[in-house]
Amino acid sequence: MPPAMKRKAARSAMKHKAAGGAAMKRKAIKTIVKKIARARQAQKAGRGKAAGKDASPAPRGGKSVEQTYQKKTQVEHILLRPDTYVGSVEMQTDTLWVWDKDAGEMQSKSVNYVPALYKIFDEILVNAADHLTRDKSMDCIKVEIDVKQGRIKVTNNGKSLPIQIHKTHKVYVPELVFGHLLTSDNYDDSEKKVTGGRNGFGAKLTNIFSNRFVVETAGKGKVYRQQWTTNMSRKGKPEIKRYTGPEYTSVEFWPDLARFGMDHLEADTVALMRRRVYDLGGTSGTRCAVHLDGKLVPLKSFEDYCALFHSGEGHVYNKPNKRWELLVARSDGDGFQQCSFVNAISTPKAGTHVQYVVDQLIDAILAKANKAAGKGSDIKRVQVKNHLWIFVNCLIENPAFSSQTKEMMTLKASSFGSTCDLSKAFIEEVIEKTDIVNAVVSDAQARMTAQMDKTGKSGVKGKRILGIPKLEDANEAGGKKGGFFVACGIICYFCCFLVAVSISCHIVVGCS
Amino acid sequence: MPPAMKRKAARSAMKHKAAGGAAMKRKAIKTIVKKIARARQAQKAGRGKAAGKDASPAPRGGKSVEQTYQKKTQVEHILLRPDTYVGSVEMQTDTLWVWDKDAGEMQSKSVNYVPALYKIFDEILVNAADHLTRDKSMDCIKVEIDVKQGRIKVTNNGKSLPIQIHKTHKVYVPELVFGHLLTSDNYDDSEKKVTGGRNGFGAKLTNIFSNRFVVETAGKGKVYRQQWTTNMSRKGKPEIKRYTGPEYTSVEFWPDLARFGMDHLEADTVALMRRRVYDLGGTSGTRCAVHLDGKLVPLKSFEDYCALFHSGEGHVYNKPNKRWELLVARSDGDGFQQCSFVNAISTPKAGTHVQYVVDQLIDAILAKANKAAGKGSDIKRVQVKNHLWIFVNCLIENPAFSSQTKEMMTLKASSFGSTCDLSKAFIEEVIEKTDIVNAVVSDAQARMTAQMDKTGKSGVKGKRILGIPKLEDANEAGGKKGGFFVACGIICYFCCFLVAVSISCHIVVGCS
Repeated sequence: MPPAMKRKAARSAMKHKAAGGAAMKRKAIKTIVKKIARARQAQKAGRGKAAGKDASPAPRGGKSVEQTYQKKTQVEHILLRPDTYVGSVEMQTDTLWVWDKDAGEMQSKSVNYVPALYKIFDEILVNAADHLTRDKSMDCIKVEIDVKQGRIKVTNNGKSLPIQIHKTHKVYVPELVFGHLLTSDNYDDSEKKVTGGRNGFGAKLTNIFSNRFVVETAGKGKVYRQQWTTNMSRKGKPEIKRYTGPEYTSVEFWPDLARFGMDHLEADTVALMRRRVYDLGGTSGTRCAVHLDGKLVPLKSFEDYCALFHSGEGHVYNKPNKRWELLVARSDGDGFQQCSFVNAISTPKAGTHVQYVVDQLIDAILAKANKAAGKGSDIKRVQVKNHLWIFVNCLIENPAFSSQTKEMMTLKASSFGSTCDLSKAFIEEVIEKTDIVNAVVSDAQARMTAQMDKTGKSGVKGKRILGIPKLEDANEAGGKKGGFFVACGIICYFCCFLVAVSISCHIVVGCS
Repeated sequence: MPPAMKRKAARSAMKHKAAGGAAMKRKAIKTIVKKIARARQAQKAGRGKAAGKDASPAPRGGKSVEQTYQKKTQVEHILLRPDTYVGSVEMQTDTLWVWDKDAGEMQSKSVNYVPALYKIFDEILVNAADHLTRDKSMDCIKVEIDVKQGRIKVTNNGKSLPIQIHKTHKVYVPELVFGHLLTSDNYDDSEKKVTGGRNGFGAKLTNIFSNRFVVETAGKGKVYRQQWTTNMSRKGKPEIKRYTGPEYTSVEFWPDLARFGMDHLEADTVALMRRRVYDLGGTSGTRCAVHLDGKLVPLKSFEDYCALFHSGEGHVYNKPNKRWELLVARSDGDGFQQCSFVNAISTPKAGTHVQYVVDQLIDAILAKANKAAGKGSDIKRVQVKNHLWIFVNCLIENPAFSSQTKEMMTLKASSFGSTCDLSKAFIEEVIEKTDIVNAVVSDAQARMTAQMDKTGKSGVKGKRILGIPKLEDANEAGGKKGGFFVACGIICYFCCFLVAVSISCHIVVGCS
């Protein structure tokens, strides 16, 4: 990551300059310049190796066949092309909901964050949530975000991992699970599971993007501890000791911040991570207590959680069955808004689970809206959707996602393993409490009027159907409007005529 | 894929029943039932192996540790969890633009397709487009979609691959490139490349999801041919012969349709693939002739290509430099529409390249719209964006995407390796020809009126800023409007008064 490191060096230098600590500044620059030099050396060594005396003559741009066509190990590939595994390692700016610790509330604001860093934190959280689904005795998840040390720790009090050698792969099970790629306890699809883990990358990605990664699992008289360092490249020996306390499993890691262009856990990143812990608190049900930095997250239900985002009246909550719960509110009309979870995984790009629920709502609201708008109205589905704000928390059997970052679910509704049929009563309540039908109709009518005003000046039409009322209806509406003006004109004209006649009479009479 | 196969068996049976071919029906069912049986046997064998006498006692749901914690090879993983590599293998229904061969035009319609099947076709097309970027002598790509045989072939007339042994990996270069995962000629990021290949999966994914996959590459006196069968699991020996014709490389494959729940290349899928060939024809510049099923795709430029989607006036095309070209039109106002390409890769979920261009347009249009709307107006960016329809074709250095399916680019603008500054003249032309400022203003005003009408009835407001004019401005606007009505009232009242006075005078005078 030389460019990220360069940025980091510059930023670090500026920061220390501002602080006035000349010695610290020198030290920071020295450390980072060393890292860059190491990265460059490694790159050169790689090239030198391929360019050795064995290499074939250069076919392209002065490179040998061996230099041109390269093969990577999977860990090398993950570090070289992180995007498809954990998302971008570049800093980006987005408007997101984050937890403001000082204000004690959710805030939607512009934040600078690195998606990949957020994701490796998320993977460990989802692991803990999965354990909660599998282990009915578990009732606590503790998360520590230690900004000073750049250290994160997630502990759960569920059953420990088996502390024994895996007979096929000849290593301890915890080592296989946390230190070997493409290992998972979720590969058997004949088992219908409602967990988040699917691919066998999860915690290994966190390990690969960390300077140090420590696993502990304790239970049945033993505690197992193992450490990896330098992006999972150095594996420590498993330490097994006698233990008599309650069962637990913890994952503690120091993210390789230089890979994310940072030299410390930045405030926006931490606020986003804290929000994710609140997500967990809001979606993990009543059984599990979630702690953040030693304090209990005070959320008892998904409804409590939703209330962090919207305030005031006009929303409806419903839990049709054990696997589905949702809350419907109204957006400001400029676009669909959603907040959704599948098996504790946050799905900011929604997917089939959200579409499934939204389609039912749109069907009902659209029918009402078209009826209310009267003959000739032809409101589009998107016009209804733009007014919806929906929160969904669901459990789906063996879900499929559009990528390893799991931001969008793609499994089709018939494979969900459950249904969420919205009752007529619920939909009626949504319509009544949110006043959404009126909002949709008045918007559509306003848009229609605006469309008609523009006749003759409109832009590119293409081969699309515009979804506005049919031409004859629009003309008819225009005709009615015209008629009103004509009637007004006649009345005015008649008044003026009367006035003129009266005045002239008056004058004539007065003169006589 | 037993569920997909079951579906396929049922569909196939129904189809043949409808056709009345009893013998064919029996044959189809027999073939598919055999496949299902084979798949089940393989699954059982796998479980049996893990459940052998070596296995540890069952820790979870009656399974041994070895059954619970599994490790996969990468090819096994790709076939088991295709989603993150090639997208969903489930049939889905979307409204998409496809090429209607009979009508000879692009049509936006509801199509049933399997994203993964579309993607493995796309990978081979992008390979050919990449070769075009690297090899300045190449000028032809031929695509055959043979529905009868369920066979696809893509041929280019660029320079052949090196027909020699790779000294590090001890296999022929074409075998390494098409038959070994995580191999690529695009791993060196110190080279600034504007190609689509990045990850080293590409063609291997097509090979893995095919029953048969054949590569030929010919040049410098030799022709190399190699075949893989059964999802890349069986590798044929390379055949090398003398050859004196022009250089070429071809990839021919028979997709494993059963994995996609199909027994033939379905019409919608083929229409979508044909559209993708037209994409290539429209984005590959003037140098390269693209042929589809033996016929030249009649597109000479990106502007020609865009005209397949919109028709009529009101759009503006611009090519600020060699790496960027774009066309701007107006959408119907209900949502942003876009069609974009990065290094010949179609990006249906847009990304940073589209945002980069759109932001410049929104800045300019928003300023004009707020000015036109008058004091107190506060039109939101999304309200402008909802009126835009944009086509972008660009070349980006070492692009990064949100997933292996590359539907969205994530590289930030500062790393594009080029800029696309829209000139003032171009933006003026867009504003003039599309009449977008008027459209945005009249929509915003209509929405504002609708919002004010709803005062007291509005839904959930939450902690959002609604983006409508500030309350005092809205009141002021209301005040002005009110003033107009008051003035009208006074005039009317005065008229009536005059009439009444005149009439009474008249009567009095008449009586006198």
